[in-house]
Amino acid sequence: MPLTINCDMGESFGLYSFGDDSACMPFVTHANIACGFHASDPKTMWQTVKQAAEAGIGIGAHPGLPDREGFGRRVMKMSREDVAAMVHYQCGALNAFLMAEGVKMSHIKPHGALFGMAQNETHVAEAIADVAVSMELPVIGYSNCEMSRVFTDRGVPFACEFYADLDYDDEGRQIISMAHEAVDKTLVADKVEKALKRGKATSVNGVEVDVVADTICVHSDTPGALDVAKAVHAALKDRLSSSLV
Amino acid sequence: MPLTINCDMGESFGLYSFGDDSACMPFVTHANIACGFHASDPKTMWQTVKQAAEAGIGIGAHPGLPDREGFGRRVMKMSREDVAAMVHYQCGALNAFLMAEGVKMSHIKPHGALFGMAQNETHVAEAIADVAVSMELPVIGYSNCEMSRVFTDRGVPFACEFYADLDYDDEGRQIISMAHEAVDKTLVADKVEKALKRGKATSVNGVEVDVVADTICVHSDTPGALDVAKAVHAALKDRLSSSLV
Amino acid sequence: MPLTINCDMGESFGLYSFGDDSACMPFVTHANIACGFHASDPKTMWQTVKQAAEAGIGIGAHPGLPDREGFGRRVMKMSREDVAAMVHYQCGALNAFLMAEGVKMSHIKPHGALFGMAQNETHVAEAIADVAVSMELPVIGYSNCEMSRVFTDRGVPFACEFYADLDYDDEGRQIISMAHEAVDKTLVADKVEKALKRGKATSVNGVEVDVVADTICVHSDTPGALDVAKAVHAALKDRLSSSLV
Amino acid sequence: MPLTINCDMGESFGLYSFGDDSACMPFVTHANIACGFHASDPKTMWQTVKQAAEAGIGIGAHPGLPDREGFGRRVMKMSREDVAAMVHYQCGALNAFLMAEGVKMSHIKPHGALFGMAQNETHVAEAIADVAVSMELPVIGYSNCEMSRVFTDRGVPFACEFYADLDYDDEGRQIISMAHEAVDKTLVADKVEKALKRGKATSVNGVEVDVVADTICVHSDTPGALDVAKAVHAALKDRLSSSLV
Repeated sequence: MPLTINCDMGESFGLYSFGDDSACMPFVTHANIACGFHASDPKTMWQTVKQAAEAGIGIGAHPGLPDREGFGRRVMKMSREDVAAMVHYQCGALNAFLMAEGVKMSHIKPHGALFGMAQNETHVAEAIADVAVSMELPVIGYSNCEMSRVFTDRGVPFACEFYADLDYDDEGRQIISMAHEAVDKTLVADKVEKALKRGKATSVNGVEVDVVADTICVHSDTPGALDVAKAVHAALKDRLSSSLV
Repeated sequence: MPLTINCDMGESFGLYSFGDDSACMPFVTHANIACGFHASDPKTMWQTVKQAAEAGIGIGAHPGLPDREGFGRRVMKMSREDVAAMVHYQCGALNAFLMAEGVKMSHIKPHGALFGMAQNETHVAEAIADVAVSMELPVIGYSNCEMSRVFTDRGVPFACEFYADLDYDDEGRQIISMAHEAVDKTLVADKVEKALKRGKATSVNGVEVDVVADTICVHSDTPGALDVAKAVHAALKDRLSSSLV
Repeated sequence: MPLTINCDMGESFGLYSFGDDSACMPFVTHANIACGFHASDPKTMWQTVKQAAEAGIGIGAHPGLPDREGFGRRVMKMSREDVAAMVHYQCGALNAFLMAEGVKMSHIKPHGALFGMAQNETHVAEAIADVAVSMELPVIGYSNCEMSRVFTDRGVPFACEFYADLDYDDEGRQIISMAHEAVDKTLVADKVEKALKRGKATSVNGVEVDVVADTICVHSDTPGALDVAKAVHAALKDRLSSSLV
Repeated sequence: MPLTINCDMGESFGLYSFGDDSACMPFVTHANIACGFHASDPKTMWQTVKQAAEAGIGIGAHPGLPDREGFGRRVMKMSREDVAAMVHYQCGALNAFLMAEGVKMSHIKPHGALFGMAQNETHVAEAIADVAVSMELPVIGYSNCEMSRVFTDRGVPFACEFYADLDYDDEGRQIISMAHEAVDKTLVADKVEKALKRGKATSVNGVEVDVVADTICVHSDTPGALDVAKAVHAALKDRLSSSLV
């Protein structure tokens, strides 16, 4: 698998700014751009697409739950039909800006609680696969869960994500908090290197857990995000690919 | 110009139903499908696209203001950049469902207050033209206003709309109310015929005003909408085109 | 415990109408008025408060999840602090209209998935109790669940609800569907009578389950709601109280 | 008239932070707390009410248009009935948190475009007066406009606002931009002093215009807001009142 760095972007909303996208762009290979449900708005999306196109990085859709107040980080019970329609809608909306800028969409990465739901709930993973198949796009997903199982079964190309800036539980799952904690940038490169070379991470309880690190994720709202992105980029820069899968 | 009948559709929302789209489809040539801002939701949009595709009618985007409570019928002050981004977003979102169904979008028709704003405000008409040019789509617009002037200047193909079910003021503009009034279906055919043959309508004050009727609009929330659609269709059926411009 | 009939009302939204509140009012003792999150809008709320005040029935707040598209019927993961703030907000908003009309609020009844969450999740039941204690109001809740346990522990007065128009599962819980099914009005009176006299209901699998029927709930969006309300009212009218607890 | 300093607060939303309310509180006499329409959310509102109550400053409602994306700074056409219901709703929602904290609401100040609409449109000023009369609260308004005329006619107590951090046009009206510009804090005290002593301000075109400065407004999103607040507070501190009217 090729190695990439992805970052969630375009998550500002109206007057509210969130993350420093343009500063981070030089240090990632793929931007996941929010689509107006958990964050972003049409103007922000268009602007972020332009910036990412100019930076020459891959541009994917980052669809989320219809919950701006919770930033798409609160699990909701939704049917497969609802999820598929909602993800299709958001990908199409972002695609309008890509088409306006003459750029092809590179991938889909579900956001926050939707990502977590797709790890655990078969019908959510199926719904995301429905859109990926229909739009002929790869997905940024996760190893050893419903997503990896469903995507493999249906032949949806996907890259497994490893989090440079999140903690892991004893089952090898990322721990999603409402607001992200600061991370020690000096430890980030080692953590990523260990995931890449040995497929292992250390959980918050000190347990060695299995992880798959096809693409390294950096969150723009982690305090010190830019330093984290730089550290990861510096460690990996000779091995990075522009192709996700 | 070809002659067509268009109808706003897909304006239900969640559990709230609005209009009887499938009943109206046989009597119109083009559906304008709401895009989730003034009305509709992803699942409703997808379903309506499927129905319209099956009925074999043209499918256009019906973008509106971000105001569900006011059904997009309350004027808002917005910049050209905001309008262009908002319209692009909505057209792209609808387009996802058209692509999923293998159908090409036929046109754009701004909804409600956005339509009225584009009649009166140059920068709003320009914003809509921006999207039409970018997406290479014709627009359902209006005669003798900023829309017709801007679209003509910029070479955007457009069809002028005549309302079978709305009243006209002394300047020849449609009168938009929050909720539509019932209309006498026996008078509708004559009203449309007069607009088509003589380019005239009678205003609420009895003044003869100039109108252009390239495409006849029927609203699905007008009480008795189906009867209005049937009456218009019966009167025009031998002259109808499947092509908007 | 006194015996009452309650009905969810004020669930129209903008141009979208939902239920026939004024027709139902004569047949219920308490209205639960939606507060603008899962349904309703400020104008609808005010209008419904006026109608209910004129009908002389009790007026309670019917707060729901921030999910209009799902009509508050999709479970969301929320913290106690989020739920308490959200319920407080909605109750206060409705209270403004009650104060404007010189009427005192009679109770709180959580809506849809929020009601279900409060049956199952301790911290949600606690959050609702927080608001009930702060506003010194009784709650319409449910028997034999986290709500009844928490409310009893904290001394929050509550009435247990029995559904005239919903089915029951084998654990004695109401089955919440996205859209309600029609019910046979001829069976409703017997079902209610059995719940009142014997504290029993028959589940969808034919199991006899325990229920508590302090207050009988009729949903205004059940097809034939008015007939259901009339049937329940006719059966109970000599025993009804204007006081919930 | 007593002299006061007011500041818009509680305008953060979910994960999005906006302004440094707690830092500003010691330098103002009255907080206008956003009510969840143009900005804020229930948890933010409650938290801000607690902070303001602890700081011992007056707490007013700061209702805005239902337009989070535009931060309530885009004019919308609304009926008197819609505005009155919307303002009532928001004031009631905020009041729930004041009641929970045992504090009495001190005033209402319309936000952004709603404030501007009330300066220009009689029916909007009347709608705000409707709520002020019903809730028996004074309003922070503006001199020499529809608000001052309507409030005077109807006996609604009001304080006229002067903007320490906004520019003025040649008609003596504040210039509302989408995002506020930085201001030179060394000039702020002189500008305020001139408004207080001579009832004059210098417009952007150098014209001397009449202003009334009963209460000085500082916006928390003006770059350098805290310095502006401190400068105004330092200049006025011996003359400040805790009573708005």
